[in-house]
Amino acid sequence: MILKTNFTPGPSQLFMTTEDHARKAFRELIPSLSHRSKQFEDISRNATEGLRTLLNIPSNFSIVFTGSATEIWERIIQNLTEHTSHHLVNGAFSQKFYDTALQLNRKPTVSIIKLGKGFDDSVETPLTELIAITHNETSTGVSLPLTVITRIRNNNPSALLAVDAVSSLPYLDFDFTQVDSVFFSVQKGFGLPAGLGVWIVNERCLARAEQILSTGISIGSYHTLPSLIDNARKNQTPETPNVLGIYLLAKVVEDMNRRGIQIIRRETEYKAAILYQALDSHSLLRPFVEEPAHRSKTVLVADCGAHTEALTNHLIKKGMLPGDGYGAQKKTQLRFANFPAHSKEQYELLVDSILEFKG
Amino acid sequence: MILKTNFTPGPSQLFMTTEDHARKAFRELIPSLSHRSKQFEDISRNATEGLRTLLNIPSNFSIVFTGSATEIWERIIQNLTEHTSHHLVNGAFSQKFYDTALQLNRKPTVSIIKLGKGFDDSVETPLTELIAITHNETSTGVSLPLTVITRIRNNNPSALLAVDAVSSLPYLDFDFTQVDSVFFSVQKGFGLPAGLGVWIVNERCLARAEQILSTGISIGSYHTLPSLIDNARKNQTPETPNVLGIYLLAKVVEDMNRRGIQIIRRETEYKAAILYQALDSHSLLRPFVEEPAHRSKTVLVADCGAHTEALTNHLIKKGMLPGDGYGAQKKTQLRFANFPAHSKEQYELLVDSILEFKG
Repeated sequence: MILKTNFTPGPSQLFMTTEDHARKAFRELIPSLSHRSKQFEDISRNATEGLRTLLNIPSNFSIVFTGSATEIWERIIQNLTEHTSHHLVNGAFSQKFYDTALQLNRKPTVSIIKLGKGFDDSVETPLTELIAITHNETSTGVSLPLTVITRIRNNNPSALLAVDAVSSLPYLDFDFTQVDSVFFSVQKGFGLPAGLGVWIVNERCLARAEQILSTGISIGSYHTLPSLIDNARKNQTPETPNVLGIYLLAKVVEDMNRRGIQIIRRETEYKAAILYQALDSHSLLRPFVEEPAHRSKTVLVADCGAHTEALTNHLIKKGMLPGDGYGAQKKTQLRFANFPAHSKEQYELLVDSILEFKG
Repeated sequence: MILKTNFTPGPSQLFMTTEDHARKAFRELIPSLSHRSKQFEDISRNATEGLRTLLNIPSNFSIVFTGSATEIWERIIQNLTEHTSHHLVNGAFSQKFYDTALQLNRKPTVSIIKLGKGFDDSVETPLTELIAITHNETSTGVSLPLTVITRIRNNNPSALLAVDAVSSLPYLDFDFTQVDSVFFSVQKGFGLPAGLGVWIVNERCLARAEQILSTGISIGSYHTLPSLIDNARKNQTPETPNVLGIYLLAKVVEDMNRRGIQIIRRETEYKAAILYQALDSHSLLRPFVEEPAHRSKTVLVADCGAHTEALTNHLIKKGMLPGDGYGAQKKTQLRFANFPAHSKEQYELLVDSILEFKG
């Protein structure tokens, strides 16, 4: 059975135009295109300049491509830290970012809080080389208020600040003056096939990578930050990249720019509001995240307890696939992605179906 | 202008069935599929078991996925060497493998010969942890006789032997008892969109990676060999992978198995023979590689001298795109990929067109 709407947080539902663009890509022989051709450089430039417009990325930031956001965790630790990093951990993905630093033999420190809780202005960070923040914990649906990022920044002006925005972009409206590095993968908010990570980094990050390299420490090989940025300046990549993925990103970002990021953001907020309202008012369900300021607008998590399986079946019967709860919460929670690919109509049908669910 | 046949060595022409499979993939919502689903595990198993059949890979080898073959250079050095590796260098790509070891602060050694020349039984290798061989130098069209690999193996039983087979598979019929690690990327001989590397490794490699890790040295994070193999045993990947790429690989490998690897190999040899014959007999052109034993069957390089541009235009007029010479040879050489995607008829037309070329 093929379900009409996929609310799994990632890989998630494709953006409305992705399939058409893919068909066109094959017709135009994009997958056979040399990655050293002028035509590829144009595609790559369209992707990065389109993102610059969509997310309002300043010119002191470079935009480079990797195989996944998971790779970017590794590249950040490798290129931007020599000894230490500090991690805000409140779920499985922020934990994995911390684990990456351990695996690379750094001595990371951590602020850790309970699943379902978010960090607020009380969070303390030590003197460190890099502060790693997960803006939206995809496993729990907890989001970090942007004011907390600003406060951390002000308290730690010497540390680089890296933000995992894997499941919050393009909704999230970042103030790039408050961060040094932001990254995401394309199979979530951008509604694209998986296999491409996007890393947005400023000149402080490049300088730090070059400085570490100059001490004789290895910062990797083909995907060091200097190598990635040198290539990106020519709209190139060090290796043969996921050319089709970069093409599809360019096209979908163009469509999003045409639609307008303000409309996308407004619709995201509307869809999140009606689903949280339904969960708040439901007698059998409730939002997992209690504190409204920490409730993610892009990955909404419902505590469904003993009703999880019944609700899943109820939604599947109506052509909708909810995301399972993450890890230990698989049997008691459902996750709902709220990405630009999910239309208002699909969310209204989801909300109506949840409201009529009586267990 | 869209050319009917693309002889660039990679990304190269798509396999005849790739586009149809991609269309079906979108129809079946493969790009939205969770990489933690049973359905993904089936796709992943189809890809690896199909490759095992096609390439006759023994059961003591694992097959794991990365973002590119370039990534595999890094993972090999990182996971399989502590101090040293020895590299057979005869072109740009074998050089890059060596450079990777330098960038990762190892102390690699090198046997280096002139562009257009191949290694023979006279090559000497020192005592080292790993010997890195490029079976087919895509930049020059020089191939290594398999007997040389066997001799190197016999002379260095303690070293791990890693073979870059990026542009020789699936044509190449490896004796896997003679090697420890073989790898390729899918945009060459497999006729697929770029963005996926395939790494075939035996239990000696895994043991070596685990032993290095046990001494406290970092061998990476998500893509360490133990992490890749642990996941592969469950038909999983550590990160969200290029799901569409793995699906297309499974489908094309299934088609190749249906066609039969012996037929594919026989056709490859036929196509190589008629093109080398045409180049040998041509008054204005000649094969760049003089020694027949070192001439690649899968990437054929022609010295075209002052006629390079005219021959390119002559072929383009007939709907065929030759590959440029690599690097400094761009203005004086052309490269012709001879992959399973290139039909006998396309090669016969190419050869006829070259023979009628009078400068």
